[in-house]
Formats: sequence, structure tokens, C-alpha cells
Amino acid sequence: MAVDTEHETDDATETVTASVVGASGFTGGELLRLLAGHPNFELAEATSRSYAGKSVGSKHPPLRGTDLRFTEPDDLESVDVLFAATPHGVSMGQIDEFFDVADTVVDLSADFRLDTEEQYDEWYDGHDAPEYLERAEYALPEINRENLPGAELIAGGGCNATATILGLYPLVEAGIVDGDQQIVVDVKVGSSEGGAGGGEASSHPERSGVVRPYAPTGHRHEAEIEQFLDTSVAFTCHAVDMVRGASATSHVFPSEPVSKGDLWKAYRGAYEDEPFVRMAAGGSGVYRYPEPKAVAGTNYAEVGFELDPSNKRVVVFSAIDNMMKGSAGQAVHAANVALGFEETAGLDFAGLHPVGAP
Amino acid sequence: MAVDTEHETDDATETVTASVVGASGFTGGELLRLLAGHPNFELAEATSRSYAGKSVGSKHPPLRGTDLRFTEPDDLESVDVLFAATPHGVSMGQIDEFFDVADTVVDLSADFRLDTEEQYDEWYDGHDAPEYLERAEYALPEINRENLPGAELIAGGGCNATATILGLYPLVEAGIVDGDQQIVVDVKVGSSEGGAGGGEASSHPERSGVVRPYAPTGHRHEAEIEQFLDTSVAFTCHAVDMVRGASATSHVFPSEPVSKGDLWKAYRGAYEDEPFVRMAAGGSGVYRYPEPKAVAGTNYAEVGFELDPSNKRVVVFSAIDNMMKGSAGQAVHAANVALGFEETAGLDFAGLHPVGAP
Amino acid sequence: MAVDTEHETDDATETVTASVVGASGFTGGELLRLLAGHPNFELAEATSRSYAGKSVGSKHPPLRGTDLRFTEPDDLESVDVLFAATPHGVSMGQIDEFFDVADTVVDLSADFRLDTEEQYDEWYDGHDAPEYLERAEYALPEINRENLPGAELIAGGGCNATATILGLYPLVEAGIVDGDQQIVVDVKVGSSEGGAGGGEASSHPERSGVVRPYAPTGHRHEAEIEQFLDTSVAFTCHAVDMVRGASATSHVFPSEPVSKGDLWKAYRGAYEDEPFVRMAAGGSGVYRYPEPKAVAGTNYAEVGFELDPSNKRVVVFSAIDNMMKGSAGQAVHAANVALGFEETAGLDFAGLHPVGAP
Amino acid sequence: MAVDTEHETDDATETVTASVVGASGFTGGELLRLLAGHPNFELAEATSRSYAGKSVGSKHPPLRGTDLRFTEPDDLESVDVLFAATPHGVSMGQIDEFFDVADTVVDLSADFRLDTEEQYDEWYDGHDAPEYLERAEYALPEINRENLPGAELIAGGGCNATATILGLYPLVEAGIVDGDQQIVVDVKVGSSEGGAGGGEASSHPERSGVVRPYAPTGHRHEAEIEQFLDTSVAFTCHAVDMVRGASATSHVFPSEPVSKGDLWKAYRGAYEDEPFVRMAAGGSGVYRYPEPKAVAGTNYAEVGFELDPSNKRVVVFSAIDNMMKGSAGQAVHAANVALGFEETAGLDFAGLHPVGAP
Repeated sequence: MAVDTEHETDDATETVTASVVGASGFTGGELLRLLAGHPNFELAEATSRSYAGKSVGSKHPPLRGTDLRFTEPDDLESVDVLFAATPHGVSMGQIDEFFDVADTVVDLSADFRLDTEEQYDEWYDGHDAPEYLERAEYALPEINRENLPGAELIAGGGCNATATILGLYPLVEAGIVDGDQQIVVDVKVGSSEGGAGGGEASSHPERSGVVRPYAPTGHRHEAEIEQFLDTSVAFTCHAVDMVRGASATSHVFPSEPVSKGDLWKAYRGAYEDEPFVRMAAGGSGVYRYPEPKAVAGTNYAEVGFELDPSNKRVVVFSAIDNMMKGSAGQAVHAANVALGFEETAGLDFAGLHPVGAP
Repeated sequence: MAVDTEHETDDATETVTASVVGASGFTGGELLRLLAGHPNFELAEATSRSYAGKSVGSKHPPLRGTDLRFTEPDDLESVDVLFAATPHGVSMGQIDEFFDVADTVVDLSADFRLDTEEQYDEWYDGHDAPEYLERAEYALPEINRENLPGAELIAGGGCNATATILGLYPLVEAGIVDGDQQIVVDVKVGSSEGGAGGGEASSHPERSGVVRPYAPTGHRHEAEIEQFLDTSVAFTCHAVDMVRGASATSHVFPSEPVSKGDLWKAYRGAYEDEPFVRMAAGGSGVYRYPEPKAVAGTNYAEVGFELDPSNKRVVVFSAIDNMMKGSAGQAVHAANVALGFEETAGLDFAGLHPVGAP
Repeated sequence: MAVDTEHETDDATETVTASVVGASGFTGGELLRLLAGHPNFELAEATSRSYAGKSVGSKHPPLRGTDLRFTEPDDLESVDVLFAATPHGVSMGQIDEFFDVADTVVDLSADFRLDTEEQYDEWYDGHDAPEYLERAEYALPEINRENLPGAELIAGGGCNATATILGLYPLVEAGIVDGDQQIVVDVKVGSSEGGAGGGEASSHPERSGVVRPYAPTGHRHEAEIEQFLDTSVAFTCHAVDMVRGASATSHVFPSEPVSKGDLWKAYRGAYEDEPFVRMAAGGSGVYRYPEPKAVAGTNYAEVGFELDPSNKRVVVFSAIDNMMKGSAGQAVHAANVALGFEETAGLDFAGLHPVGAP
Repeated sequence: MAVDTEHETDDATETVTASVVGASGFTGGELLRLLAGHPNFELAEATSRSYAGKSVGSKHPPLRGTDLRFTEPDDLESVDVLFAATPHGVSMGQIDEFFDVADTVVDLSADFRLDTEEQYDEWYDGHDAPEYLERAEYALPEINRENLPGAELIAGGGCNATATILGLYPLVEAGIVDGDQQIVVDVKVGSSEGGAGGGEASSHPERSGVVRPYAPTGHRHEAEIEQFLDTSVAFTCHAVDMVRGASATSHVFPSEPVSKGDLWKAYRGAYEDEPFVRMAAGGSGVYRYPEPKAVAGTNYAEVGFELDPSNKRVVVFSAIDNMMKGSAGQAVHAANVALGFEETAGLDFAGLHPVGAP
């Protein structure tokens, strides 16, 4: 899938206004940081009921240099784009108000990711505004770029789903995965997935050093993965000791034998022109396969694989920063495509080396 | 200071009964673990208002093998020894009730550590039962062993104070520190000091990887240190990324020149017969000075020093596990001395190598 | 499988002499620590070519209290039991010399784990002393207790294999796993598995914070697992940010439907009398499933499971301390059984709470 | 000290060529990353004897997107600016060759930081090219901006010295520190300070979770601090569990009483126009004082203080990313000033929140 450039504006300095709802949370803070450094966005408001009046820098240290203060969500003024970083279930109840103040809404919650009300009945607690579901476009450009230009409602993907989909998508496209095989996905995630605040389980003494099964079965992201890959997955999540990062290891048993060449062909075909996918599949050195710490702070996904001939298995590795490619970065990337900006605008941070456990 | 053995019982198998008040917290759990494995204690009750009825193992994994369940604090029955692991300010209000059910009370809070009501007025919010202050004995055997046998009310030392006192005490005893010098103490502590629960600052995403000044000045343990060392200290605390451990680095500028020989003589004189103090002052290998991870899980303190001739300075290092030597282990050690048991009974765990960030 | 007590000696104070070969490494240090605290072993020698003459405490801080010094391996004197903690491939070349000085040899390397020379040809670099293979008994009492009493050559299990086998063994015994299903095993391990020393990949800056696929396919422990479970496994290992610990998540797809009751019956049947297996399968609180940090420093394995009806899957979790249950602790446990000592002698440490990333 | 803008070029798109010597190390990799994203530098060569021929991305994951490969240091071609990231002692022996290929040399080692040969005799192993010492300009713009424009040889500051100097400099400028007081500096540093490779002490199992006194006394950065602040410091370093970061806590006892207002005046006077210094001294929220994780990956220093009236003490906190403000970022910042580029060019990354232990 090549980078589609035809929708880019001629003028790289065009700017639109944007506000962030739910800006005191982790993903809200990431959005503020990205928009503040974005050449095409002018940051208008950052709402937070709890922190209204305080400087955004007091909550998010990277924003200490700005003068922006949190405002009451009820005082939202009109902007071109509204980014919503509210908890699951909030956006679906306020989506009409969101469109009252903005032409384009980018929602980072789960509220508009799935296609049908039935899915929300099965996996969540139903849906308050099902009429919006068919208007929403999934934010992940690697699998939905063609539908994003001009989209009015963009639904950010789930972080674990994003990691998994990016790993498996080339195999689906190449027909190596066809829905008949049992696929096992084992995901390892950082503590920022739980959001700010948190209770006893996410306190430092209890959460440090864990390899903790936190969603052994029935994780809601299964629905999202299956919707986009047309195959069921047996999905399990472990919390591990990092703050940022999601790493998906997918175990695939193809019906027909595949070679390394077949796999390279599938992955290169899917991703060679993608600006935010880096391949890592063997080679030399310490970083031979995807690792979350290698993409920490960036909008990159790393994807790689290994062949296990003795078990007729393909092991697929994919790693993202759950706050970036798995949330705020993906949202900005999708907005760039939707609005015709340079795809990589505001998202050029390439990561750090060495780096510990970001 | 030699180990005083004259109060030890002839019968190493003598047992007394003990209960723990506030047993769902971190130090309460440590007490349960230590008492359950102690040859001279029979564990009776573990109280917790919030968890009454639940198994202690559901809260504290090391106790999964026991049948003990939390009970209501109001249902406490008579025992020989009551260990109180309640928050500061609770024991002073319930001390009469504690003595109604037990002959000996060991309190791990700050409520009976200081000598006078005036100190509590200055450093805390006053005191509800000042008449008990002179009856209380400070738990740290290294500096108060002679007063512990037969003590009825034992006051556990503060973790940071314990680390600091153990480092400086030999210099005071040897006259190298005499109250005229400015001493700077820089302490690094783990997240368990904050106790179970915790708010935003102690959530994993915010607390991980920190070197955070959390008590830059005015830490309450200054009072305790000055009370026992007869010298003022300029004390600062940093939170660092570990769960257990307190490490005190004390910078001392003696009025008279001292040699390494003088220092060794002072430390050996103070500690060579102490069962729970290990010296680490130079030598070869990775672990040349005291480190909290080398004593994690144990009741040992490591103490060491280095001489800085160009600044006429002695740098003193001391490291403990704040939950053990700094709290529950110290309490059991003091109880062993008070009741005439083998001093090291129930406290023989020597630590782990290698070990990460316990 | 009940604890077999008939081989226990009447005299709990019987002692035998033991030496450790390769005592400066991580598992060697653990053996020294365990034997020094064991009521039935008298520690004779600790050999290390590199550190001969130095105190064992300079290398292993928990041993600072002992007077023992490393000795040259060539100066080994006769003992009752010899524990070998040498790298893979060393013991097979020295096994005759080992038996010259000891009646019983407990080897912690891979050299005697597999049954046949052919397996060593396939998975390792062949074998130098294949005649010993049939004399060796696998150390894991949970699956081989009946063959251990009186064993002269005991072969310690691999850490990842131990975690996996303990998780799946009850399903094999109950016939829920019968060799026809595809089983996927995803293991997360700490850095101590790589042993002392280590190169660039295990340096702190590169190794911190990782979720790193380090054995994507073809891990040698597959051979060991398949030998004992009679089923093939698709095995993948990830390095995560802890020092101690191995956690195995096994995804099993039974041919016939199973209920939670079936699973509880299988696991209780296998483990209810096992002194070193703790079940954790749901319930309330933070620690609902097995976690390596809950067993760090102990010889316990935690085992648990969850049922995934929508995928007809059983997810099995097992967690151990790779240095203890996965190596030195298992070896001592096996020696206890072999020599008729109390099974739990010297292995009673129950773990810590809270604890970080041991 | 105001930002001096008069040397800035009119043309923000002017570019010069630059190469990096010693590019496979940690600071070399940081330089590559910064120069690759810098609007005014065109990256020419990255030398590494060990990795010549390999892609720089195989060593430094953030550079995976570039085509650059390591080259032999002997094949260096002429460039405008040469950055040297070689170990201490190398640059002084090759400085003539460096100037053969470049007009401007920016050296990140200790080789040109000190003013006199006598200092190198005292603190290092002497100096091979003392004639260059007076030509070298210290890289830290906050204290040496006026001498940087047009400088031909720029000497990067030491990371611990940089953190300490930035904390104390305003007090010296304001006369609050005048050289008569005893100042104690307690620094906590991450593992990247030790550079790539590393031995046993920096292996993950031994280095994880430490609070380790690694330079108790006599640290070489004392010389650098005293040179620039005209006051002696009693300096002690601890290794703590992070990869990036240096945090200096300085305990100052002013001869005359000072108020918070005096302190704010001193710090604002020194830093209010500095583009890379952020103040953090009290306030609300989690991040009230400087913390290394709040500046990880950035070129910012955070500086703050607290007053301790009872001890007549000022406690100064400063935090930097040792790889950035303490090394590669400082070098690029100095080069920007020296060459008349926008001061902040290529250094605009503001950091991450939340973030673990980078």
C-alpha cells in the first residue's frame, strides 16, 4: 500500500484550529504535546473539569514551556478539529455536542471503532449513538488510508488491537492467513494503558516488576481485531514492567507451507511505502526483532517475524508505543491524512538509544 | 556492643501468642510473614477492618499457604504480644485498649518514638497519650539493647532514621561526630515507604524511574535522628525506582583529622558483635559499599564509609530494607530481645544474589 | 501425587557434606546460600578457578557472614554430595572425576536432562558421556518423585522447561492434553537466565525495559518439554525487565470441551499435596494468577488457568523463580528426596510482599 | 544572561557538513540522531572501526530509516564540523588530524574541558596536546555563551558537572555562594554514563535496582565544577536504576541568611531567557522539583530549590538527560551558537509524559 499523496495540500503552512477534550489524562497530554509541535495545528483549548484554571505544564511536564491552561469542557468554543481523549462511553453521549463545535471529530476512545450496535451490545455496554457508527472511519492509515481523506468522524484504534493488526495484516492480505487457522496472540503492555490515577493494582509497589496476566481471555480488542482481519484470534494480555509500549506476538499456523521469501514478500508488499512502519526480522546486533523500547515516544510500529519449520509456525512480532501509534500519534496521523497535511507532520521523533523502560 | 545473651531463655521452643493489628498493610503483612515463620511465636489474629473474613494470602501472596483470615479489630482476643502496624496517630489513641488485651505492645508507627510531648507538638500534631512516652523503649537493639529486656511498650524506629542512625552512631560513640559539625544526609527510598494504596504520585506510570525530591527539607525523621545522636542533621529524601530499601549517605566533616584506621576502629567497636550489621567499605568486586538490594528481604543493615582527604570529609553509607530492618524486622528483633528469645530467631533470611529492584 | 514420606530419615539432624563446583556463578551462589542454611548439609568447598582464594561473600553478598573462600576446582576433596553449577557441556566431560569425589552428583546444567544421545545430537553439540544418560534422574519431584530416592546422578531441569511442564503436566495426566493438539507456549524470562558476565545485549542500558524476543523459535527446552509431556509445543521466549523469574503462558485447545470443574479437578489431583506448588486461578485482589514476583526467592511454583469458551481454549499460567524452582532450589529439593531428608528442608522462604522486580 | 541572537544567520536554511567520530557509542549515536534531524547540518560520515560497513540503524534503532553506514575512521573526508565522541584520552592524541579535516571540532570527551595541563596531571593522566587547552571553549552556553560564536574547538562539559554547575551557578552569580562555604553535592546517575559495552558491574542482573555509591569521593568532575564556580565541592555519585539521567542535589549553607525571594531573584536572573532551562521549585502536582525523567530525551535542564530555615540551608536540585544536555545535546547547542544557527535548532523535543525510566 503506497503512501497516497494526492490529498496533500500545496501549502505546508496551512493551519487549522484544534482543541482537546479530556486533556489532563495521559492520551490527552500526548495530543497536546503533538499538536503544540505540529506545523498545521493551532492549539485552542485543553479541557479538564478537574484541573480547569491550572497550567497544562503543571500536569504534563513536557508542556512546561507553554502558557496554555486547562478550561472547563462546558466552555468549548468552535474549532476546526476536536480531539476527544475521554474514557470509553463518554464520547458516544456527547458526540452531537462535539459536532456542534467542530467540523471534524477525532475520538480516541472505543466508542466508534466497531461497525455495529450488535458488537457494542456483545463487547461493551451497548451504544448511545449507533447512527454515527457507519459514519466513523477507523484511524489506522495502514489499513484504512483510502477512506480517511475528508472523514468527519475518526475513531482511533485500540492500542493492543493496533499492534496485533499491524503484525497480522500482511499475512491476511497475502492469503497466508485465511480465517481457518487458530491464531494465538500474546500481548505485553505497559502501565500507561491503565490511564492516569489507577488503584491498588497499578500502584508502584504492586505494579513494579510484574508479568501479570491482566486479561487472560475475553479482551475487548478481540472484537476489533476480528473485524479488520476477518479471522478469530485467541488473545491474552500480560502487564509487564514498562510504562509505555505494547508488544504483540502472534503465533500463526498456515494451512500451506510458507517460506521466508513468501513472508518478506508479504510484509514488503504491505509496508515498504509506509512512513511509520519499520521492519525488524533477524539480522545482527541487539535489536533483531521489534521491541517496544525501540519505538518509545515515536509513531513508528516495528514489525517482524520468524519461521518455525518444526512446528509449521510463523511467529509475528509487532511493537508500538501504546500512547503514540496506539493512540495519540495514530490520531494525529489520521488527521493529517483526513485534512490533507503532510502525513508525517508533527510526528517525526525517531526514538532514543539507549533507553530504559519508557 | 556485644550481643547480650543473659536474657535468653533456656528453652528455644518456648512460644508466646501474638496478634497483628493493621495486618492488611505492607508492614502488617511483613509481621504476619515473620511471625508465621518464627519458632517462638504462635500467630493468633490478624486484624483488618477492610478485609475481615478474607484469607491473609489473598492480600499477601507469601502467606498463601496459611489458613489465617483477617478479623475485625474490635474482636481482638487476649494475647501475650500485640504488634500494631497502624498509621501514625492511631496507636496513641488506642494504646489503653492495646494493653487491655496484651502484656507487651510493639508499635511500628511514629507514636511512641520520641521522648517528649513537646517533640510531638513540634514535628507531629501533638500526642494523645503522653504519659506513655517515658514507658516506651526505642526498638533498635544496636543503640538500645540494654533497655529492651522486659520492656512492655516498644516503639519501632522510622526507616530513614534507622538507616541514618546506624550509619552515624559509631562516629558519635567514638567522638568523631560531636554535635558541632554540619552533617548532610541524603536518603534514597523505595515506594513501599508510602504504604499500600497510594494516589497519583505513587501510581506506576508516575512513580517509575524517578529520582524525585519528596522531602527536600523538614522531614520528621530529623527529630528522631537528633534525639538519638545528639547532633543536628540537614536531611533530604529522594524517591528512587525500587519498592523496598532505604539508603542513607551521610557527609560528615570532623573537627579533627581522622584516618581510615580510626574509622575502622569506630565501626568495628560498635558493630563487630552485632548479628544484623554487615560492614562493606571498599574491597573488590561489584558490591564494595552498602546497597539496599544486597539486604532486600533481610533484617541486615549494611554500613560502610569512605574518606575524602581533599575535602576533610567522611562519607558514610548505610543501607537497609525499609520494611525489615526499618520496620517489621526491627520490631521482631526487639521483641526477641525483650522476651528473651534468640536474637536472630525468625530473621535468618540472608538475601538474594542476583536480585533486581526488590 | 502425594508427598512420599517413607524415605525420610528418622533423624532430622543427620548431616552430609556437600561441595559446589562452579560456585562463583549465579546458580552456584544460590546453591551456596541454600546449603549454608540447610539443616542437613555441611558445606565443604566452593570451587571457582577465577576467584580461588577470595571470600564467597565478596561475590555473593548474602554470604558475607560466612568464612568460606573459593577453592581451585582441581583441589576438590571427597564429599557425600557434589553439586555442579558449571556451564552446559562441562559436566559431561568431568562426570567421572565428579563421581571420584562424591557418591551423589546433582548437575544443574543441561548435560543429563535428556534421555538419549540422539537428542543431544539434535538439540546440542552431541554428548561426551552418553553411558550416563540412563543413570540420570530428572530433578523435578512433581513429575519424578518416585525415581529420586537413592538416585546417584540427578539432572536439574531447565528453568523454562520447568515452568512449562508444571503448567501443562496436570492436563496431560488428566488426558485433556493428549498430544494431538497444537499447544503454544509463550515464556517471559528475567536477565539472570543469561548468567553472570554477559555481553552487550545483557548490559543494563540495552537490557532494561525490554520485551525482547530472544528465542523466537527452536529453543532447546522444547526437547525437554516434549520428552516429559509426550506432546509437541510451539515455544517462544521473551526477555522482560526483571532479574529473576520465568513465567510460562500456555495456550491449549482441547479436543473435547472442558469445564472449569474439570480443570480444577486436574490441577488439584496433581498438586494438592505438593509442598512447593501454589494454585492461583482467579479470585479477588491484585494477585489472581501466577506471577514470578510473587514467588521470587522461593522454591514455589504458582500455577493457574483460565477458560476461554469463545475460542475453546484453556490458558495456563505458571510462574517460578528461575534461580530457585528453575535451578538451585529444584536441585536441593531433589537432593532432599534422594537422600531422605525432609522435602522442604532449607527451602522454607515464602517470598516477599510487596516486592519490585527481583 | 539573555539569549544572544546577534550571531544568528539570516538564512535559517544554511547548511554545513558534519561527521561524527566514534559513532557507534552511545553519545555518537545521539549525535547522529540529532544531526540527522537538524535543519542546518548535512551528515557526512559516521566512523566506527568495529562496525565499519554496517548500517548505523543496526546499532542505533532510531536511525533505522537512514541509509548511512559506518565508515573507517582513517577514511575521514573534509567537512565543516567534526564531532568527536571518542573515549577520554583519544581526542587529545588526534586533535591535529581532526583539524586537518574540519574547521570546527566539537569534542565530547574530557580532553579539553580543563584550563591547564596541571589539572590534567592532577585529575587525569596528563595531557598530550596542552597547547590546545587555551583555544578550547567550554560548550555550556548558559555559562559561556559569549565565547562560543566563532569558536574552533569546543569542549563538551561532563554530565555530572553540567548538572551541578547549572544548579549552583545562579547562587555564585548572586554572591550567595562565595567560595567560603562547604557545599555537598550528591549526584544520582543512570547506566548510560558508563557507555556501551560494560563489564560485570553494568550487567543487567548486577546493575538493576541499585542505589550504588560508585564514586564516593575524588570524582574527576570536581575539578570541572570548581574551575567554573570558583568554589570547592564535596562530591559523591550514586548509580541508580535508570538508563538516562543525571540528578544533582546540592546542599549549600550560605554565610548570610537568604529568603525564597532572594533565591527566585537569583535563578530568574540567571535563567529567565535561557531556552533550555526550566524552573521547578515547589508548586502543586506530582512534578514539583526537577526530575531526570521529566527531561529524558530532551536538551532541557530543570533547576529548582528549597529553603531549610532550621538548618540555614539551601537545597538545590538540578536534573538533565546525561546523553543530551549532559553530552550530545549540549554539543549541538554549542555548535548552533558557534556557527550562528538558531540556538534551539534540532533540539526541540520536549520530552514525554508519562514515561518510565528512560
